[in-house]
Amino acid sequence: DAQYNRNVPFETSPRAIRLYYFYNHWTLRVATYVFICVDLSLALFEEPALFPLPFLATSIVEVLCLTAFFGRLVHFAKVTPQMVFWKDTKNICILVTIALTLLDLIIYGSLEAVQIRGIRWSRAFRPVFLINFPESRQIRRALRSLRNTLPDILYVFLLFMFSVLIFSLMALKLFGDRGLKTAEGSPYLTNILEIAFELYVLVTTANSPDVMMPAYDFNRWYSLYFIAYIIINTYIFMSVFLAVVYNNYRKHLKNEIRKLVYLKRHKMMEAFKILKVKVGTEFVVREAEWKRLARMVVPDISSSHLELLWRISDEGQKGHVDRMNFLRLADLLNIQVVTVNIRKHPLEAWAPRVYQSSASLFVQRMVRHRAFVWVYDVIILVNAVFIALDERSLFISRAEWFFLCLYVAEILLKLYTYEPRAYLGRKQFWNWFDILIIIAALVATVANATIQSARRYNSQQVLDIVLILRILRLLRVIVSIQRFRVIVTTLVNIGPTVLTFAGLVFVVYYAFAIVGMEVFQGKVRFFDPNFTSPDALVCGNPALRGSAFARARYCKNNFNDLASAFLLLTELTVVNQWHVIAGGFALATHQAAKLYFIFFHVVVVILIVNIFIAFILEAFFVAYSLEKSELETVIEKKIQELG
Amino acid sequence: DAQYNRNVPFETSPRAIRLYYFYNHWTLRVATYVFICVDLSLALFEEPALFPLPFLATSIVEVLCLTAFFGRLVHFAKVTPQMVFWKDTKNICILVTIALTLLDLIIYGSLEAVQIRGIRWSRAFRPVFLINFPESRQIRRALRSLRNTLPDILYVFLLFMFSVLIFSLMALKLFGDRGLKTAEGSPYLTNILEIAFELYVLVTTANSPDVMMPAYDFNRWYSLYFIAYIIINTYIFMSVFLAVVYNNYRKHLKNEIRKLVYLKRHKMMEAFKILKVKVGTEFVVREAEWKRLARMVVPDISSSHLELLWRISDEGQKGHVDRMNFLRLADLLNIQVVTVNIRKHPLEAWAPRVYQSSASLFVQRMVRHRAFVWVYDVIILVNAVFIALDERSLFISRAEWFFLCLYVAEILLKLYTYEPRAYLGRKQFWNWFDILIIIAALVATVANATIQSARRYNSQQVLDIVLILRILRLLRVIVSIQRFRVIVTTLVNIGPTVLTFAGLVFVVYYAFAIVGMEVFQGKVRFFDPNFTSPDALVCGNPALRGSAFARARYCKNNFNDLASAFLLLTELTVVNQWHVIAGGFALATHQAAKLYFIFFHVVVVILIVNIFIAFILEAFFVAYSLEKSELETVIEKKIQELG
Repeated sequence: DAQYNRNVPFETSPRAIRLYYFYNHWTLRVATYVFICVDLSLALFEEPALFPLPFLATSIVEVLCLTAFFGRLVHFAKVTPQMVFWKDTKNICILVTIALTLLDLIIYGSLEAVQIRGIRWSRAFRPVFLINFPESRQIRRALRSLRNTLPDILYVFLLFMFSVLIFSLMALKLFGDRGLKTAEGSPYLTNILEIAFELYVLVTTANSPDVMMPAYDFNRWYSLYFIAYIIINTYIFMSVFLAVVYNNYRKHLKNEIRKLVYLKRHKMMEAFKILKVKVGTEFVVREAEWKRLARMVVPDISSSHLELLWRISDEGQKGHVDRMNFLRLADLLNIQVVTVNIRKHPLEAWAPRVYQSSASLFVQRMVRHRAFVWVYDVIILVNAVFIALDERSLFISRAEWFFLCLYVAEILLKLYTYEPRAYLGRKQFWNWFDILIIIAALVATVANATIQSARRYNSQQVLDIVLILRILRLLRVIVSIQRFRVIVTTLVNIGPTVLTFAGLVFVVYYAFAIVGMEVFQGKVRFFDPNFTSPDALVCGNPALRGSAFARARYCKNNFNDLASAFLLLTELTVVNQWHVIAGGFALATHQAAKLYFIFFHVVVVILIVNIFIAFILEAFFVAYSLEKSELETVIEKKIQELG
Repeated sequence: DAQYNRNVPFETSPRAIRLYYFYNHWTLRVATYVFICVDLSLALFEEPALFPLPFLATSIVEVLCLTAFFGRLVHFAKVTPQMVFWKDTKNICILVTIALTLLDLIIYGSLEAVQIRGIRWSRAFRPVFLINFPESRQIRRALRSLRNTLPDILYVFLLFMFSVLIFSLMALKLFGDRGLKTAEGSPYLTNILEIAFELYVLVTTANSPDVMMPAYDFNRWYSLYFIAYIIINTYIFMSVFLAVVYNNYRKHLKNEIRKLVYLKRHKMMEAFKILKVKVGTEFVVREAEWKRLARMVVPDISSSHLELLWRISDEGQKGHVDRMNFLRLADLLNIQVVTVNIRKHPLEAWAPRVYQSSASLFVQRMVRHRAFVWVYDVIILVNAVFIALDERSLFISRAEWFFLCLYVAEILLKLYTYEPRAYLGRKQFWNWFDILIIIAALVATVANATIQSARRYNSQQVLDIVLILRILRLLRVIVSIQRFRVIVTTLVNIGPTVLTFAGLVFVVYYAFAIVGMEVFQGKVRFFDPNFTSPDALVCGNPALRGSAFARARYCKNNFNDLASAFLLLTELTVVNQWHVIAGGFALATHQAAKLYFIFFHVVVVILIVNIFIAFILEAFFVAYSLEKSELETVIEKKIQELG
């Protein structure tokens, strides 16, 4: 267990252990995930729906999901001591959410029965299930780090809001009585609430420089007010937010790691206590027990690997390990050792005469030469130019095949020169990358030719994917430039953690999307662009006539189904033009609707995006500073010692 | 010298030392700064001018400045050994710039004489003088850290450009043939160069979500392309840029500090060699010499302070210090020790009976009470509401005086309660802040009353300043909340270094402004907003008809004088709508003009703003982690030992 950092306190009776194993069985865990996914995806089918289903159907599915969650929780309660179970906020959260959802379902159902449209408010809590089941530890950790940041960031935020208010007052006094007009002809900065909103938008830079232009046109010196505002609030305060989030992130990262290490060590100590025997004055674990344990934890370990680990642990070659070295076992098992065997090329074994002939050797030398890489880089660039050109000419489409042949030839030449099993080894990420791209391009070109000969351009989506695959082959340039590979490797390594952020963002988006769908559904509608009725120009809502929202043709940015809502929230995360979207929905409903958008900005952009940036910064610093961890160095030393 | 970290190698003959002292004399240094300022401000008077002056006048002033720079350089050459002088790139830079400027002046002058309009290209090099004179060490250091970042960032930038190009190709293939139209009715993503520009703009988020809307309206799934683009290029690559810049910043910061410490130590060693005497087996410096040296470096040091430092240095109370402790002298002298004397309140001394009376004591207890602070916070908030209300009503303007009286009463009460000299001590930043704000508000209100009684609203600028001063008094809320004070103190502490960045930004802005003024002057003109000729609507340039630039009324964003150019560059730094400005100038001249704006974005936003953010992050981390430096801890320990 210590290897996977799991830490569920459980009773140690045989029945409890059986239950615990069953609880951790993969089928049950997969089933939980499936139920969570089904529950979350219900929003696609409920009013406002992408694929409408009757309320009865969705509510039955929801009750089913809730039952499954309840069952899972009861199972978990059987496994853990009662005290511990009730102390854990996770479990209480789930129980409360289940109860609330049932309550909401009953209320909504009964209102529905008497034809009153209720609000399914409990849907915003659905992500609670995703967060609180023990399986999604990573998201919970990210959320915890978010929560820990809150107290520190609160004061900075208050000071920031205070600064915005002071500037708002100044703007009211400076510009309120001047009778200036914006570019659209509306009065300029006359209402304190409107000013505060405009200035908050200016912090996000989304209305710069438009908000300044009327004052600047009136008098040059007023620009100083806006410059001061931007320096203080946009540059300094936003950086301070990043600093606070980053500082907390580092602090809590350290704490989390320290706690994990402590727990792991604690468990290993217990294992040590069970296995120890007394030799001389100290308690040790013998070789046989040690190896049996290692084999039990990692069943498919090779014996040479095991032997290596044992020699590292057993420093004095005494046939047993002491406590300190035993504790290292979990870390050792987590390190992957690559077994490199220098083998002969199979062709050399089968036809040594041909393979060692001077022509063959010349080819091999050529392939190993640097210029080979350069020539292929040039070929790829030429190919890029050809892709950019019009593909309908016959010459270009022939050239397509020519380039593909060149790429395949390259791969074959490389396989001829290098030992295939080594070239395609499990760790040779870049070689695999290369081959996959070529295969994809090959498939894409063949598919393209087939489609084009069969019927002209009608399966649009297939064609688009084919197009993208053909262009992706240009990525091969990355492979041949060492510095690019380093950057990409770092980016690929942080991939899994980026997925945690994706989970966190999904949770927050889901809650906001549900709220947005309940509040804004149907207020803004999209009409086909060719449909030129007056309704289409104002997104089906007369309140939007003449608004920036309608003028920018943002009608498709609406909350009329889950997919649209998610896309709209993505646009809000990117920040630009968010005030236009917020203004549009405020016009369609009420000015207070802007609060929803401001709140979203604070939560997602100021908190989550900053944590994301902090995470990328930290990942790159670690990549720059640490090449190898201490333990890996120990292993390398041992390997060198052993020859 | 070691105390100020100056490191100019100089000869040690008496004449050279005299010259050196004269070189460092404040009049000469101020004169150099004045000449640099005059030279830089020439751009205000030269074509295109804010205040036009004939070419003859500006060129004479410029030649004068160049002579002054040359003279300063010759003086410096006399002071330093010839070898060192010619090895220093700084001096060569200045010489080359002087030569180039003269050459440019001659060419421009002769062209002017035959009525041909030349280009004053050398003006872009003027900031070289600002950077390269030894006086502006800080800016040079910032610039060096920028230069050191370049190699690392170059590879990331190339990879980033490569990714943009790949996505451009995809966009061309996916959207080029669809015949889609943008919201303005122009063709959508049909030209590869235009696509690349649009996608570069999308990285800065300035055209999100507009660039996506036509494709999204056409088919929902195309939004995935844009989301992928934004995640990869906006979020990940921009964070990587910050990471690389930050990492380099930290690295080079460490190097710079290490170098400085080394130089300082080296000089102290030389001083030690001169002063040392042999006592027992080791070389030491005696108390008398040590104190004389300290007094020479800091003439106005108090003897108790000197005694304290001596006791810290002379650990064993032996009457002399060894080498290690001698080396610490410079650091010790840089630490400021606050002498706190607990004095009696002067009123207590003058009228003890009255001051100690029960009424007086009650007042003192009241002022010291927490609620006193709270009451005043509430008063400030009420005042804020009053300020927001219409000030022309008589009641409000009376209330103004009432609040001012309350504030003055607060200050007087505090002075009554606390010892005035302690309350107004040099280190009591917040008390001074408080008093200054009140005085400013008092002056402002009196001025306002005078102006209003004399004539109604006609000295607009004075009135605006008065208004701002009156509102700034709300800043007093910060004083009373401890957490706010910590944040503001950190911000105030980083103030000086922020000024270095201001210098760096000024240098870059100046060069870009000169280039922009030469290229874009007169292309876009501003007409008074009330002037509604057709010319005014297209900023005096028919090429802008129907452009987003003209529609947004950006006519005043032009390069027609230095002030406008600086403001435009500030807007470009804020990023939003930069593509509209770039597009406008590209229409007015040539599409290649966009390169100027892209280059500006890379230099200022990707490099300098990121260094600025890195700097703020580092400053806050230091503020969070370090409360006291090691040396200060030593001093405190000693003070505690001494009682």
